[in-house]
Order: sequence, then C-alpha cells, then structure tokens
Amino acid sequence: MELSCDPAALTPAAARAAIRRGEITGPTTGFCAGYAQGNLVVLPKALAWDFLLFCQRNPKACPLLEVADAGARTFAQFAPGSDIAADIPRYRVYEHGRLTAEPTDVTAYFDARQDLVSFLIGCSFSFESALLEAGIPVRQIEEGVNVPMYNTSIPCAPAGIFHGSMVVSMRPIPHRLVPAAVAVTAEMPRVHGMPIQIGFPEAIGIPDLARPDYGDPVTIREGEVPVFWPCGVTPQAAVMASRPSFCITHAPGHMFITDVTNAALKL
Amino acid sequence: MELSCDPAALTPAAARAAIRRGEITGPTTGFCAGYAQGNLVVLPKALAWDFLLFCQRNPKACPLLEVADAGARTFAQFAPGSDIAADIPRYRVYEHGRLTAEPTDVTAYFDARQDLVSFLIGCSFSFESALLEAGIPVRQIEEGVNVPMYNTSIPCAPAGIFHGSMVVSMRPIPHRLVPAAVAVTAEMPRVHGMPIQIGFPEAIGIPDLARPDYGDPVTIREGEVPVFWPCGVTPQAAVMASRPSFCITHAPGHMFITDVTNAALKL
Repeated sequence: MELSCDPAALTPAAARAAIRRGEITGPTTGFCAGYAQGNLVVLPKALAWDFLLFCQRNPKACPLLEVADAGARTFAQFAPGSDIAADIPRYRVYEHGRLTAEPTDVTAYFDARQDLVSFLIGCSFSFESALLEAGIPVRQIEEGVNVPMYNTSIPCAPAGIFHGSMVVSMRPIPHRLVPAAVAVTAEMPRVHGMPIQIGFPEAIGIPDLARPDYGDPVTIREGEVPVFWPCGVTPQAAVMASRPSFCITHAPGHMFITDVTNAALKL
Repeated sequence: MELSCDPAALTPAAARAAIRRGEITGPTTGFCAGYAQGNLVVLPKALAWDFLLFCQRNPKACPLLEVADAGARTFAQFAPGSDIAADIPRYRVYEHGRLTAEPTDVTAYFDARQDLVSFLIGCSFSFESALLEAGIPVRQIEEGVNVPMYNTSIPCAPAGIFHGSMVVSMRPIPHRLVPAAVAVTAEMPRVHGMPIQIGFPEAIGIPDLARPDYGDPVTIREGEVPVFWPCGVTPQAAVMASRPSFCITHAPGHMFITDVTNAALKL
C-alpha cells in the first residue's frame, strides 16, 4: 500500500531515503518543515584548501556548515547515515568550468576517484522560514518564483585561486517590518545572518532591480524597501570563475536536507 | 621625552608596534580596552588542512577568526599591517611535540621556511570583558590568577591527525546572575559563545574542581555555581597530542591584539 504524504511532514532521513531511491527528483522547497537545508559544493582535494580558506574568509556569503573528509560520502555531523552522492534530487557536474551533466546521482563520480571533498553551506531557506514565522512576507515565495540575486561591487576576500564579488539576494520588506527582518536574520549567522544593505542598491553596485543577475525579478510594492542579504551563490560563482578541473554542486533549489533544525542553527 | 601610558588606552596598532620593538614582553591582559585578542597557532602547510577541518568541526572550542595564506605574516582582515612573527610578546616553539624555545620574536623561523600557516583563534578575554560590563564577576581576574581549565569527557569531532576532548574553562557565577552570563556570552559565538555546562562538572568528566588540568584553582563561594565554557586550549591540546613536526603558539596570556572590537565580533 502506498501512502500519499506531505513533503513538509517527512523526517529528513525519510526524505533523503526517498531521494536516494529516485522517488524525488524535483526541488526540495517546503520539504521537512523546520529542518535546515544546505548548498553542496564538491571539489578535488587539490582545490579544497583554497576553497575552505575562501569560505572561512567570507563567512557571511559562504557560511560553512560541514566539510567531509576527502573521499567521504557522509555529512556525519549534520546528517549521520547520509549519502552525499545520492541524497540530493539533482546535481550539476562541471568539468573545466563547463556544465557536463545534471544527474540525479553522482555515485559513479565518487567511485571513480577518492579525492573528492564535499562542502555543505548554509542556505537562505532557513532564514526565510524564520521570517515567515515572524510574520514577515517573503515575496518570491508569494509569487512562486526564484529569489532575485545580484552581483555586487562588494569584494570577497580572495583565497588562492578563488576570488570574486559578493552575490546578494533581495527581498522587498514593508518599511515597518525592516527592523524585525534584521533582528530575525541577525540571530542566524550560520545561514547568512543579517542584511548587508537596506534600501540603497546603487551603493553596492546594483544598477537595476528589475534585472537580477540570477533568479527572477519580484514586485516591489509602495512602502516596501529592497533588503539585501549575502547569498550562497557567492561561493558557486567564485568556483565557476576559477574554471576548476572538476566540480559537483546541487542543481538550484535541489538541496541537501539535514537532520539539524533551523532553530538549532542559532545555538 | 618618554610618556608613561596606560596599556588599556593604547590603540592595537600602537601596542603591536611596541611589542614588535621589544618594549613589551609580558602578558597582554588588559591591553587595548575593547579590542579582541586572539590565540595563535602556526603549523606547516602539510598539517594545515587537518587543523582547519578540526577547527571547522569544533567551532565552539576552536572559533577561527582568521587564517593567513601559507608563508604570509599578516592577519589582513583582523590586523592590517600586523607582523604575526613579531607582534606577540612571547611565543612558544615546539618541535616534534617538545617545547624547544620561548622567544619574543619568531621571524627567523618564518624566514627559514615558506610553508607556515598562521591561525588566529578567538579568546575568552573578549567575553570576559562583556561579562564585566554586564556586572558579572570574573573570579580569576579578582584573584589575580589564571582561569582554571579542565579536560572533559566531551569528545571533539576528529579531523585527520587531530583529535581529543574538549577543554573547558570555569568561572563561578552567583546563581542569580547565571541567566545573564549565558545570555551575554551566547551573543558572542566567535569567542566560544554560551556555556557548555552549568553546575554539573561530573556530567562532563570533571572529578575535582580544586584540581584544574591547566591554570589555577579559584574560590567558589556560597551561592555560586560553576559555569563551564569551551576553551581555546582545546585546539592547542589537540595539536600537542599529535606531536607535530613543527608548531608555534603564543605563550599563555601573551596574545595577538587585533584591530577588531569585541562589539564588532557580535556582527
């Protein structure tokens, strides 16, 4: 007998198992209510030191949750028993900076070499859930599109081969709720933390809010202020700009679901 | 003309310059009021990946503030213009796990090899200053001794050659001030954050508070509760246990003074 079930009500372990069996291949938005999801970046060990340093030096945009041992396929702290190579619904594989595959399982790549290091990076899903709980609207969820993201003029601290500018995401917030939006997200430094800019896109090199560099534009209503948060696309953009020999990431919106609650990320 | 001056009133850059000139060779307690001081660990590049992973996996005990490039001698984010090899009043040099020198300058060691990686790790001086400002007593400061520190049964997450248990520091807090002590330090995750235990030393494997493993015992008065925080000796103990071929640290209490305020560490 098959039970239909609400993805929000799944435990993280059950959701990962279903993904691993190939039963879920779409985005993980709304899965496992209350649990943190993360971005994945997988690099050969030879590039891992530079990338780990890059994240350490740019913690707002690249908040590292966990780094697996070289060759390991489990995030032991955030998801004991997980299989990094199979527990994400869809991956992207890059070779020499070029997208070469979008598989639902990357076991073969992990089997073919023992030097892959997996990085789990905090994701804005966690703070958006905190914003919604505080009664603060999240426009791109209302409009059913991807969050608008912009390249900025804010330089990242470089590390070895990795460098670039911060990418930010933007959410329009009613002006009376801006202090609350800052306070709620400031509590969550492991998932990007407080905004980096409020109300002055031109001050960070964004010429036109209607034309995001990634994602979709959203409506900014009368009385709303554009609020900008450091974005997890920053490390991905820095990696891609370096044209690494080999790299695996999650496909956008297809995240790694952890056993750690968003609330526990504040501790 | 020589001006006598209060060390608390020095700017960090002035204090580092005086240390670099050899005018200050003692502990930095009380220097540069309001500015964060940090622990130093210097390791050869070959050991640096494992150590960086160890810190990433044990952020409460090993809160990394900054990691310099291999061979670099400046903490560019926390102290632009600093000289890691000369700006600490006294260093300890270890070879194959044995203390071989306690110099006031380690320039010669940095000159002799280009592969040294310097790690700056958050220090409890920062949260003690926040406790004092909140009217919470800090006993070992009152008694003019070193803080008592204890090995515990709390395992650290291992990384490569580095493993061990968490070392904690203990401060006796009047019971009515315990909630405030938790709240004040919880705000500062980059300098160890909230306590790991309150009132039950036996629960974390500490048999006798009168016999600390490091530092000095302090008086616990009637109505006071022993409160335990993760301690920066944890990474040093893990490094020493691995008997690395080469390692430099600060001498206890002789810290690296940064240009970043304790208040800014909360952001």
